[in-house]
Amino acid sequence: MSKAIAGPEIERMIQLLSRLPGLGPRSARKAALSLLKRREDLLMPLADALSAAVDRITHCSECGNVDTVSPCSLCRDGRRDRSVVVVVEEVGDLWALERAAAINGVYHVLGGHLSPLDGVGPDNLNIPRLLERASSGEVKEVILALNATVEGQSTMHYIKERLAPTNVAVSEIQKGVPIGGELDYLDDGTLAAAIKSRRRI
Amino acid sequence: MSKAIAGPEIERMIQLLSRLPGLGPRSARKAALSLLKRREDLLMPLADALSAAVDRITHCSECGNVDTVSPCSLCRDGRRDRSVVVVVEEVGDLWALERAAAINGVYHVLGGHLSPLDGVGPDNLNIPRLLERASSGEVKEVILALNATVEGQSTMHYIKERLAPTNVAVSEIQKGVPIGGELDYLDDGTLAAAIKSRRRI
Ligand SMILES: [Zn+2]
Ligand SMILES: [Zn+2]
Repeated sequence: MSKAIAGPEIERMIQLLSRLPGLGPRSARKAALSLLKRREDLLMPLADALSAAVDRITHCSECGNVDTVSPCSLCRDGRRDRSVVVVVEEVGDLWALERAAAINGVYHVLGGHLSPLDGVGPDNLNIPRLLERASSGEVKEVILALNATVEGQSTMHYIKERLAPTNVAVSEIQKGVPIGGELDYLDDGTLAAAIKSRRRI
Repeated sequence: MSKAIAGPEIERMIQLLSRLPGLGPRSARKAALSLLKRREDLLMPLADALSAAVDRITHCSECGNVDTVSPCSLCRDGRRDRSVVVVVEEVGDLWALERAAAINGVYHVLGGHLSPLDGVGPDNLNIPRLLERASSGEVKEVILALNATVEGQSTMHYIKERLAPTNVAVSEIQKGVPIGGELDYLDDGTLAAAIKSRRRI
């Protein structure tokens, strides 16, 4: 925003909206206008939803997912196969796999990947809790659904080695994930195929 | 959202975000993730800004603009030439003209255009207040910056006739507004040129 076009409170709203991915300055103004025009059916409910998120968003103690309850809605879902744990880097990857209905297991969100140069080691990720879960006796298979990037792959190999002493089968997703690609950008069919053709490692 | 991918509160946030113009279901998920990741520096300030808007947004008693104060920030701005009133259909048009720094007058927001078929007559728009302002003695020129659509033009002609008995000069913006075009979609240079070459009617 090079020039103020409205009062300071509305300017601030536009400026914050423009920080959302996918919204540039122009679309942030359109979004703000839409919110101001639709006070009852859009502005108020969104304000309430964001305030509720501020107060109640937490990380699942079981899997690291974000939700308003812990354990999260997915971990509480009795229809899921708790013997299969799908490990992902970020919540966005979990959402992508859920959208694709790729598998009916539970998840484990690492919160990123190993990155020694940035000082991100195993203890900075949700890896210790994964090792605990894998040793609990409930888990039979761990599917490593990490990004096909250098960092994702080295994180995968680290986890694979740490899981070797346990009795769980360890798989990686393989087919259809383009090298260098990030899961969250793939179409649902590719994701479902990649899960289905997972390979024992 | 065909399938729930997260708990109901987060689903609701994604669903509301996807109703904003410019955000489809995919970008609404990205936006929600970004908000959840950046609790302190994005989610909290945006929640606060929206809640403040819910509580305090109002229409300016003078010009019909939306702001958190009435009269609005623009009407309070002492550096503006209050003898020139630029009439627009919507707040978004006012924002577009301000962005283009097209003119240093004050505004009058009609809140739409005449549309007899939809039951929108002069009294459903902010037209009576415009006639009051034009008769106050402070106003020397009214610039009709309405959309170059059929509805915008017939609204313009109606207002022009109603202003005829007053002493104010009435202009319309002309040059550079493509027929059928809406102001809010024009570039700044075109808007500034259209204001500059306004024509007495
Ligand atoms: Zn969970
Ligand atoms: Zn005003």
